[in-house]
Amino acid sequence: MRIDKRQNADMRPISIRRNVMKYAEGSAYIECGETKVLCTATVSLESPTFRDSKGWVTAEYNMLPRATMQRNKRDISSLKKNSRASEIERLIGRSLRACVNLDMFSDATIIIDCDVIQADGGTRTASINAGYVALYDAFEWMKKKGYIEQNPIKFQLAAISAGIVDNEVMVDLCYEEDSNAQVDLNIVMDSNGSIAEIQATGEKNTFNKEKLNEIIILSQNAIKDIMEIQRKCLAK
Amino acid sequence: MRIDKRQNADMRPISIRRNVMKYAEGSAYIECGETKVLCTATVSLESPTFRDSKGWVTAEYNMLPRATMQRNKRDISSLKKNSRASEIERLIGRSLRACVNLDMFSDATIIIDCDVIQADGGTRTASINAGYVALYDAFEWMKKKGYIEQNPIKFQLAAISAGIVDNEVMVDLCYEEDSNAQVDLNIVMDSNGSIAEIQATGEKNTFNKEKLNEIIILSQNAIKDIMEIQRKCLAK
Amino acid sequence: MRIDKRQNADMRPISIRRNVMKYAEGSAYIECGETKVLCTATVSLESPTFRDSKGWVTAEYNMLPRATMQRNKRDISSLKKNSRASEIERLIGRSLRACVNLDMFSDATIIIDCDVIQADGGTRTASINAGYVALYDAFEWMKKKGYIEQNPIKFQLAAISAGIVDNEVMVDLCYEEDSNAQVDLNIVMDSNGSIAEIQATGEKNTFNKEKLNEIIILSQNAIKDIMEIQRKCLAK
Amino acid sequence: MRIDKRQNADMRPISIRRNVMKYAEGSAYIECGETKVLCTATVSLESPTFRDSKGWVTAEYNMLPRATMQRNKRDISSLKKNSRASEIERLIGRSLRACVNLDMFSDATIIIDCDVIQADGGTRTASINAGYVALYDAFEWMKKKGYIEQNPIKFQLAAISAGIVDNEVMVDLCYEEDSNAQVDLNIVMDSNGSIAEIQATGEKNTFNKEKLNEIIILSQNAIKDIMEIQRKCLAK
Amino acid sequence: MRIDKRQNADMRPISIRRNVMKYAEGSAYIECGETKVLCTATVSLESPTFRDSKGWVTAEYNMLPRATMQRNKRDISSLKKNSRASEIERLIGRSLRACVNLDMFSDATIIIDCDVIQADGGTRTASINAGYVALYDAFEWMKKKGYIEQNPIKFQLAAISAGIVDNEVMVDLCYEEDSNAQVDLNIVMDSNGSIAEIQATGEKNTFNKEKLNEIIILSQNAIKDIMEIQRKCLAK
Amino acid sequence: MRIDKRQNADMRPISIRRNVMKYAEGSAYIECGETKVLCTATVSLESPTFRDSKGWVTAEYNMLPRATMQRNKRDISSLKKNSRASEIERLIGRSLRACVNLDMFSDATIIIDCDVIQADGGTRTASINAGYVALYDAFEWMKKKGYIEQNPIKFQLAAISAGIVDNEVMVDLCYEEDSNAQVDLNIVMDSNGSIAEIQATGEKNTFNKEKLNEIIILSQNAIKDIMEIQRKCLAK
Repeated sequence: MRIDKRQNADMRPISIRRNVMKYAEGSAYIECGETKVLCTATVSLESPTFRDSKGWVTAEYNMLPRATMQRNKRDISSLKKNSRASEIERLIGRSLRACVNLDMFSDATIIIDCDVIQADGGTRTASINAGYVALYDAFEWMKKKGYIEQNPIKFQLAAISAGIVDNEVMVDLCYEEDSNAQVDLNIVMDSNGSIAEIQATGEKNTFNKEKLNEIIILSQNAIKDIMEIQRKCLAK
Repeated sequence: MRIDKRQNADMRPISIRRNVMKYAEGSAYIECGETKVLCTATVSLESPTFRDSKGWVTAEYNMLPRATMQRNKRDISSLKKNSRASEIERLIGRSLRACVNLDMFSDATIIIDCDVIQADGGTRTASINAGYVALYDAFEWMKKKGYIEQNPIKFQLAAISAGIVDNEVMVDLCYEEDSNAQVDLNIVMDSNGSIAEIQATGEKNTFNKEKLNEIIILSQNAIKDIMEIQRKCLAK
Repeated sequence: MRIDKRQNADMRPISIRRNVMKYAEGSAYIECGETKVLCTATVSLESPTFRDSKGWVTAEYNMLPRATMQRNKRDISSLKKNSRASEIERLIGRSLRACVNLDMFSDATIIIDCDVIQADGGTRTASINAGYVALYDAFEWMKKKGYIEQNPIKFQLAAISAGIVDNEVMVDLCYEEDSNAQVDLNIVMDSNGSIAEIQATGEKNTFNKEKLNEIIILSQNAIKDIMEIQRKCLAK
Repeated sequence: MRIDKRQNADMRPISIRRNVMKYAEGSAYIECGETKVLCTATVSLESPTFRDSKGWVTAEYNMLPRATMQRNKRDISSLKKNSRASEIERLIGRSLRACVNLDMFSDATIIIDCDVIQADGGTRTASINAGYVALYDAFEWMKKKGYIEQNPIKFQLAAISAGIVDNEVMVDLCYEEDSNAQVDLNIVMDSNGSIAEIQATGEKNTFNKEKLNEIIILSQNAIKDIMEIQRKCLAK
Repeated sequence: MRIDKRQNADMRPISIRRNVMKYAEGSAYIECGETKVLCTATVSLESPTFRDSKGWVTAEYNMLPRATMQRNKRDISSLKKNSRASEIERLIGRSLRACVNLDMFSDATIIIDCDVIQADGGTRTASINAGYVALYDAFEWMKKKGYIEQNPIKFQLAAISAGIVDNEVMVDLCYEEDSNAQVDLNIVMDSNGSIAEIQATGEKNTFNKEKLNEIIILSQNAIKDIMEIQRKCLAK
Repeated sequence: MRIDKRQNADMRPISIRRNVMKYAEGSAYIECGETKVLCTATVSLESPTFRDSKGWVTAEYNMLPRATMQRNKRDISSLKKNSRASEIERLIGRSLRACVNLDMFSDATIIIDCDVIQADGGTRTASINAGYVALYDAFEWMKKKGYIEQNPIKFQLAAISAGIVDNEVMVDLCYEEDSNAQVDLNIVMDSNGSIAEIQATGEKNTFNKEKLNEIIILSQNAIKDIMEIQRKCLAK
């Protein structure tokens, strides 16, 4: 049994609240156990130069100083973007772009800001799950304002962390489990269980492809449940 | 009558929730109308060098990107600490130090992180009001851990914004009022109505000391009400 | 009696020299006791974007490394703008804008550079006093060059520091007095004694509004004397 | 057939030269087609604070300005660490740590500097392949100097890029193939074909786990060949 | 006799290889003893603003981390351009501009990137010697592309280090000699032995103009030999 | 005849005032025509790590924003040390170290801050001339405080700019002459006319060693005159 008495296939309680911010074009707040992330989607009416005038989606990820047990200093105090945050926001951006038809809108960038209020494992996958909702709503806002005719999201997208802890394959690792994991995986899928992005690390050991497959299958089930929560949230 | 139908002497609805964070030694979340600020207090077990080993209290102030109507870029993207934030966090730190006997603890710095989730005027005074609660609890934590015997807070402290809008003296300006204010004031007081810090600017006009006095008196009343809310919050 | 034998209402000897720089559009050098500041006014023929094409006035404040007892490192060595300087230059800019009709000129920014050669208390108010002269001359330069028809300065402006030291209300605090002040105030006024900006801090105590009033009245007199010096300087 | 007439399972010509630098404790230069990377291993006789005095391995990755078709500006010109480089150097560091018993040495950090002389796809996997050789030699240097008794490398490690281009699964993508890939994968393995790290992105599509498996199998064969080259290089 | 058995007038073996990079418009790799520098020339189709639309040549100089005995940290890790590198790249840029008729081309900047692979004295002069070749080829590329009709290089240019070590005048100092030099000189000349730039420092002593003359004469001969190598390289 | 009617061998009027700052251990203010530089010497009671505990002398050079015709932005606004200033402060530091016996004091660094109030050519040589005086006085201060027994300055040191303008060899170039110079030279000498540092650039042409010699001889005479001024200043 796990630290918090969950079964290996069980996620922590997840809730997503939509439209939580007064000014943002889209926003969602997710709690997954003690992990809490606020995502906002900003519609900026210009494209990055490398896209000419075509549309783009990008993400920024940051932790509040006391999201963690030890206070983490703000990036500006060292003048350096935290490199873990760089890696994570690149993953979030890539993943969210995967579900969008970027040719269906132009002269616009959607910026997904993921601010971690509290961290207890799984902040990057929580960011993707709530970021998807905020992104969806930003496109709805663009539709309402007449910038686009159709929401360019191609398919639903969600993410989960998983891994091997004490030789057990399990999903949705909390911080303590994550710290002791032999294998640590993050996976992003569409509603057919097809993979948009997968990253797995054998922190202390290597692992074979049969084990990898096992983790993927367990993750697939968890992602189905998250998608149900996303759909309910967006139906409200 | 004001934009949101308040009387000149009326504040917006204020709520302070205490102890809202899992890891921080003290924390408080304040809503004042649409203004929302999360304050955490971190006990760091070292003093700044200029204090030798004596105690210190300092503050950091930051806005989330979509706290505002237009997205404001993170400091790290320009590598520059926002200068308005510098000015504000110096005010918050000075104010909170005023109510603490800094000689009553040593080898410790309390860092008050004020992260503005949403901004609609009065974020600096909201930060002081919730920061006071978080700071109080951080000292209680130190007491419980045996670092100090007594809470070194000397007196209760609260703050309010006020000003002159359309020739009317009023308190707790929302963003729209603040943008049109002729005089803009922030004041920090103790429970006797004595002043710890006052800053007033005649944005478009100068103002005489009689008018200044009028604003101070109205502020004094508002601060009494805020102190009542702080006390109830700390009594829970 | 005070350290340097002044009465409480007495300022240190003040001199302002105008037009001290070869290249700047306006310039003034002020000595106030041992405090020495060089102010230059640069006319830059573009407005900041947030002003569209309307006029603007801004200020920068910096200390030379040995303006102070201990050498202070240059900002560039830590890559961080000194936060005290940020706070001060925001005050100087706000104050000087108060006396200018910013709608009377366009496509131009006047930058007031305040470089502290030596610091012995009151550098921010000295900067405002000499900055006013440099600003005045920069507008005269614009008139001569045909950019404007009239000098857009609305009223004369000057500043003084004051405070309570050893329970005595006094003006123009030198560094040693400032370090021991119970209340520390900076005030900026027009020639009618109306206030453009006031900032007061109870460094060690709070203070009531009657005491505040007392300090303001003493400051008003000092500012009258400074304005006389400014007028004589500009009459030459 | 592929752009450069290779079969899907074929790598480009690979050569690794060992001990190419005069001063470094370990070094290796790899060419893989037109991709050219210089790796040096530096033994720094201190551990990072978070490791107490235990050993550590870390990596830095950087491209020379004309490693690429368009000149890429040096990080220092924008004062920002390139975020793609941050992501890559974290991958290289994690991968190389996987094959080292970090408890077998202390008070030392091995820094693997990977400087890309020329880039034509696969620079991160080339960095791992040559970085492994440089790291091996740095430990040999430590042995010779008496810092350790045994080389703490636990197993041989190599990496390959692979992906799906025009619906074909292939390994060792050159830049042009990489730009058009539907799926883009980087995988790091030990000599048993067990995985140390895997990262796969469906740049334009999602992909199912069967396809993932297919890519892994093809990669496994390529990695065997690279290990042969590493072994020959280290045998000289 | 010298450390490496050379005569005072002897240079170390020098080789320059041209056109060593796949993407750069010009490139050259120089080895001078153990000193190894890679120079690339990039044609950027815009002029710096201070040149209006006229042509420009500039240089950047950087060392790889293990070019030296002790690893030198990358500039980006301290966020500061190495000041020695600043001084050197200004020298390289000035020197190379001296041999170019900058009015013969427009709307273009040639950037000479000098990346030191390994350093054993004389890296700045090696950079000029190879930079000249890369620059020549960049202009040839512009001719071929039709941007210019004639190569704007006015005369051949080369550089050498020299100095006084143990009271002996000698050329092409290696690192160890350089560390002990009483006088340290770098000189850049045209094919007539006329000087484009000279910098000499009496590290431990002053030196008279007769001694300076002696060093210049010895340098003149060395530079003739380097020019021969440059010419052969460009003739291939 | 020259722009300002000087003969080729004539310097502009030079004055050096000593001990001009209240707090600095040494200070000197130099005017050379319209060029005005304030130098302070700070005694910092620690040595840089690369010197172990031996003494060191270093320099910083900076221009005030309106030292020049066009306002130059402060380094901190771009977060980059001006590269021209880097080059100059390295020259000043090297030159001043040449006249000091660095083994005669320990656990101390003398920092020479050169702040250019106004620039009209020759700011780096003016900095050396006044820096010498400030440095001398800083050592005298150390003697008085008992840190050293003897002033470690080995010989008197001064500097001058010179060059070829309109084919005429002349000394002490003002800004306009410097802008049109064919050869631009800075030279630092001891009281015997021996060279501590020489830097010469053929901005538009190369120049032969006979011409170089001619410039050196003219410079030697000018430096004698400057030394006379330094001596008188130090005798007061």
